[in-house]
Amino acid sequence: MTETLVTAIKTAATQVNQTIMDMFEDKPKYKELYDASQHLIKAGGKRVRPFITIMATEALGGKRIHVLPVAASMELLHCFTLVHDDIMDRDEKRRGVSTVHTIWGIPLAILVGDILYAKAYAAALTTQKIQFIAPQRLLQILDIMTEATIAICEGQAQDMQFEERHVISENEYFEMIGKKTAVLLKSSAQVGALIGGGTQDEVQRLGRYAYSAGLAFQIIDDILGLTASEATLGKPIGSDIREGKKTLIMIHARAHATPVQQSQFDSILGNKHASKSQMQSIVDMVTGLGSLEYAHVRARQLITQAKDELQTFHDTPAKAYLLSLADYIIDRKY
Amino acid sequence: MTETLVTAIKTAATQVNQTIMDMFEDKPKYKELYDASQHLIKAGGKRVRPFITIMATEALGGKRIHVLPVAASMELLHCFTLVHDDIMDRDEKRRGVSTVHTIWGIPLAILVGDILYAKAYAAALTTQKIQFIAPQRLLQILDIMTEATIAICEGQAQDMQFEERHVISENEYFEMIGKKTAVLLKSSAQVGALIGGGTQDEVQRLGRYAYSAGLAFQIIDDILGLTASEATLGKPIGSDIREGKKTLIMIHARAHATPVQQSQFDSILGNKHASKSQMQSIVDMVTGLGSLEYAHVRARQLITQAKDELQTFHDTPAKAYLLSLADYIIDRKY
Repeated sequence: MTETLVTAIKTAATQVNQTIMDMFEDKPKYKELYDASQHLIKAGGKRVRPFITIMATEALGGKRIHVLPVAASMELLHCFTLVHDDIMDRDEKRRGVSTVHTIWGIPLAILVGDILYAKAYAAALTTQKIQFIAPQRLLQILDIMTEATIAICEGQAQDMQFEERHVISENEYFEMIGKKTAVLLKSSAQVGALIGGGTQDEVQRLGRYAYSAGLAFQIIDDILGLTASEATLGKPIGSDIREGKKTLIMIHARAHATPVQQSQFDSILGNKHASKSQMQSIVDMVTGLGSLEYAHVRARQLITQAKDELQTFHDTPAKAYLLSLADYIIDRKY
Repeated sequence: MTETLVTAIKTAATQVNQTIMDMFEDKPKYKELYDASQHLIKAGGKRVRPFITIMATEALGGKRIHVLPVAASMELLHCFTLVHDDIMDRDEKRRGVSTVHTIWGIPLAILVGDILYAKAYAAALTTQKIQFIAPQRLLQILDIMTEATIAICEGQAQDMQFEERHVISENEYFEMIGKKTAVLLKSSAQVGALIGGGTQDEVQRLGRYAYSAGLAFQIIDDILGLTASEATLGKPIGSDIREGKKTLIMIHARAHATPVQQSQFDSILGNKHASKSQMQSIVDMVTGLGSLEYAHVRARQLITQAKDELQTFHDTPAKAYLLSLADYIIDRKY
């Protein structure tokens, strides 16, 4: 990541965090609920989604102060889905800290997700108070948030279904990560473009930039889930293998494996008690079959597509950051 | 319930059900998710909340066709909270059928709640397509839905907290059921009034009607949870005792019990393995202490307050139904 991008992301993250914290009044009676609700937010995270929202606004000449509530919405929406996903996937670590349900139990963690989702709407609705925005435009933003959530739920249902199946096609994979990951990045760009006063064409183009970048983001996430260290990843290595996640790497590998390799594959993938050496054998196999490299190539193609969508926009610092963010998605190590 | 009220509720319920079903396109790929999402809706229910929404619109001269999407929203919002509450409370039956998580497991049930909540917004947002409504008014409706959800989450958190404590004050109880139950009825009336073109004063008065009625509704629910039969209730008798629910009856009884009775109370309430005879001893004790009668008196007072709020409205069939619904809340046997 270039140093200026690092600084820009950090500055935006600080502003988004402040906006989110302002959404949580001090309510001592519901201390546990609100402590738990702020846990994942306080654990850090790069705030990629609200950063895209803010940059989309600024690329169209809009003001950051006007977009912060909606940018906060996108992060709240993201956090809501993470808290619920972690329950569903029985994940114990996220962003280097224990997951909400691990600390507070499943019942409270369900409530935390619900309240974060409600706060996502609450944040967007405050936009009316800080600027004049055509109410129809705000309704369109709320519509995008709602449709994104429905897509995310469908994607998560599909992802869970895939864990039960051995053979998944690439098309199915791209549809699933499209819904589970890329739609929220697309929506983040679109709502930012709407606040920035973009035309419907500009809204769509920024949306397509973020959708392609989002697909690449997920592919790289899957690669890092196999190759990064636990310390940089913030969660245990190999959990994707134990959960039987059907990543692009796994789909490519299984399709190109010998029958012997395939049965080895099917016996380890999704085995909750897979040993470290078994997991290493999967990593070795996918490397040998060229599946990690294949996934990298696909991610790079998607990043090129993403950047192409920005060509017709005026040169602004925001556009430069969006281009540089796309490169970072490929180059990141965690 | 008077026969005309029965007919009016049934007619409205059919229309609301149709509106909700229209929200679920046929998506074979996500069949399991959408089957599970429609399970509780198809299990029936009186649709009290959307009925209040529709009557509030009609009491102000608004058209039913214009309010149906928002009425559907209130039922979807209600169903979302029920599906998640049932997971949290480990309830196995609801509306006479198995709960969603009992059939499809907790992960999918979490998703079902999330998608029902998203559909609540989606339904309300379709209002723009069927009538001209000032967009600001629709934003106000979405604001009310959002704040109601936050209150419901806070109320549920409080309810779970109360299960861990022996002594709860009446004020705490009313605050909790206010948030957990009455706010959604209040919001149902308010959004209906907004669609009906009500003034802010009319919106507030209809809201207060439904809030008082909602408190009474919960008190009667607590009474029926102790006294109705399993067949009429649609869920096991005594589950409130085993879960240690702090109902108005229990709060009154414990406050008026002898020290010996109190310790008997504390040992049975919240005991997951309480026997049928132990649960019967609790029912006998609260009857002997006059706590059931006390709860009835409080509910009747609230219903009187609710009806008083409607005095200044013109006489319309809708107003008559709202008055008659208030009486029914007290008289209902399930």
